Amino acid sequence: MGLNRTQRPQPVEAVRWLGDRLELLDQRKLPDETVYVTCRTAAETATAIRDMVVRGAPAIGCAAAFGMTMASKRGDILSDAEALLAQSRPTAVNLFWALERMRGAQDPEAAAVAIFTDDLASCRAMGLHGATLIPEGARIMTHCNAGALATAGHGTALGVIRSARDAGKNVSVIANETRPYLQGARLTAWEMVQENIPVTLIADNMAGHLMSRGEVDLVIVGADRIAANGDTANKIGTYTLAVLANRHGLPFYVAAPLSTFDAKLADGSGIPIEERPAAEMTGYGDKRWAPQGVSVRNPAFDVTPADLITAIITEHGVMRAPGRESIARTLAIGRLSTL
Amino acid sequence: MGLNRTQRPQPVEAVRWLGDRLELLDQRKLPDETVYVTCRTAAETATAIRDMVVRGAPAIGCAAAFGMTMASKRGDILSDAEALLAQSRPTAVNLFWALERMRGAQDPEAAAVAIFTDDLASCRAMGLHGATLIPEGARIMTHCNAGALATAGHGTALGVIRSARDAGKNVSVIANETRPYLQGARLTAWEMVQENIPVTLIADNMAGHLMSRGEVDLVIVGADRIAANGDTANKIGTYTLAVLANRHGLPFYVAAPLSTFDAKLADGSGIPIEERPAAEMTGYGDKRWAPQGVSVRNPAFDVTPADLITAIITEHGVMRAPGRESIARTLAIGRLSTL
Repeated sequence: MGLNRTQRPQPVEAVRWLGDRLELLDQRKLPDETVYVTCRTAAETATAIRDMVVRGAPAIGCAAAFGMTMASKRGDILSDAEALLAQSRPTAVNLFWALERMRGAQDPEAAAVAIFTDDLASCRAMGLHGATLIPEGARIMTHCNAGALATAGHGTALGVIRSARDAGKNVSVIANETRPYLQGARLTAWEMVQENIPVTLIADNMAGHLMSRGEVDLVIVGADRIAANGDTANKIGTYTLAVLANRHGLPFYVAAPLSTFDAKLADGSGIPIEERPAAEMTGYGDKRWAPQGVSVRNPAFDVTPADLITAIITEHGVMRAPGRESIARTLAIGRLSTL
Repeated sequence: MGLNRTQRPQPVEAVRWLGDRLELLDQRKLPDETVYVTCRTAAETATAIRDMVVRGAPAIGCAAAFGMTMASKRGDILSDAEALLAQSRPTAVNLFWALERMRGAQDPEAAAVAIFTDDLASCRAMGLHGATLIPEGARIMTHCNAGALATAGHGTALGVIRSARDAGKNVSVIANETRPYLQGARLTAWEMVQENIPVTLIADNMAGHLMSRGEVDLVIVGADRIAANGDTANKIGTYTLAVLANRHGLPFYVAAPLSTFDAKLADGSGIPIEERPAAEMTGYGDKRWAPQGVSVRNPAFDVTPADLITAIITEHGVMRAPGRESIARTLAIGRLSTL
């Protein structure tokens, strides 16, 4: 690990399409190992999503699209393949968005590739829009991993940070480790170290302390599903960060492509929250530290009410004080641009 | 592990005095192993405190008192022994309180034993006072371990829970795991499982979500140092819980003996916050998960402002909306009772 500073970092590729098979970077093994898992069917892709080989709402959408492409090429029953993929993880709406977009596709492979390349383009556009919100020298807190690993590349929240850096701003990142799956400690820290963006790792419970000491300038996170009113489901702990940012008068930004919006849901109360296995909470990997006999809760996401969100950054611009009207307008613009 | 339900739980003894040596339950190894570390000198005791063999503000005070007893019995230079102990950990004021109480002692062993037995009595008194605040059926969130393991026995925050249970109330506990040292997952969960008090383990970042879903009735924590105005230093993450409890209109209680008050500090800004080693943050035990090259912050405590505290429970009663005057009055009553 660690990067020789004379080398340029290799771009991170979470999802690789090879024409007949899908390669997914096994994010469970990062940062220790860089290993790809090969999927040749929709079922294998669904398993990889469920087991978190690939994670991050946009990357899940891309993987599902290629899963449907393989089902189509193999002549599988498409409704069965779609059902398998739809059951893999419940919260990220990008999964269902991608399945719907694939459903009507004349050329599934072309449609899946378009989902992938559109996502990369969206991340770069979010980066350009979002970078305007980042002050010189900003100390930016982020949660989980909303980076290249969570998307077709560049990232949503980390894409904004990358674009700010590319615009010449000296920024630094505070990465919350993000228990229980440690996406912050393992993935965000790794992405930032690879690119020589200064990154400081903290436990999730330290965020409030750092804010109270004036050591944080803003918070930026990704999203797994955004309701029509702006309520946002994201990795567990996001809601707490929004409450803390509000108390400390800090901007709280969400970066997400339009594929993350679920216009059918009036508000966040309808977003299904995935409960993950207990084993993730009683230890990590093969290490167990909790006593036998303890009960466990393991909700993987929480919902941040729209009124705690300073702005939502999409590929179509920055929505300040997001609400029903501004979101409907942005979604309409998005539909126009894909006609 | 796990308890045969026909057995009565053994009382937990974190600190055992054996007349010529001190035995400390090695809390780094719980819940996997129940092993005692023997200290025969003040220096060994200081090392055990620094390395967190023993932890919890009141238990640290007891251990330091026995450390001074051993120094006295061995004929060591007492000022050297005291300096070593004083340098072991900076935040918990009970350590300095115990050293001061030992300084003037005619009979050091008797003084140390009195500190120990007074602490146990204080915990039981806090339990009785605090239990009046706990409703039947309460779902009680706690952070870190403020239990028998953190005191001479019974516990502060967990002592209140035990006393509520002993008073016939059906209570259940939500234990925040408390990264990075996992005192909640390892120690609080273990204490509660031992006593058949229902306990649910969560990651620290899940507390806000559970509150937002109406699954928490109150929060109770211990303390490491309370300033004259009620500002309270406790395990990192406590401040965040207080902010969340405030947002959700939930009571936020602190249970601490008078030995935890530092009347010399006007407010919490003067409380020294210990920064612990980076290795605690980049993994757990021999398991490392963060990439090389990442920076780390590891503050072990934070400060909760008094205005977020619903009440402080001491051995002399319940102070609602604690402030400078009520604290001064309680400390004066405490001095009277030790005359």
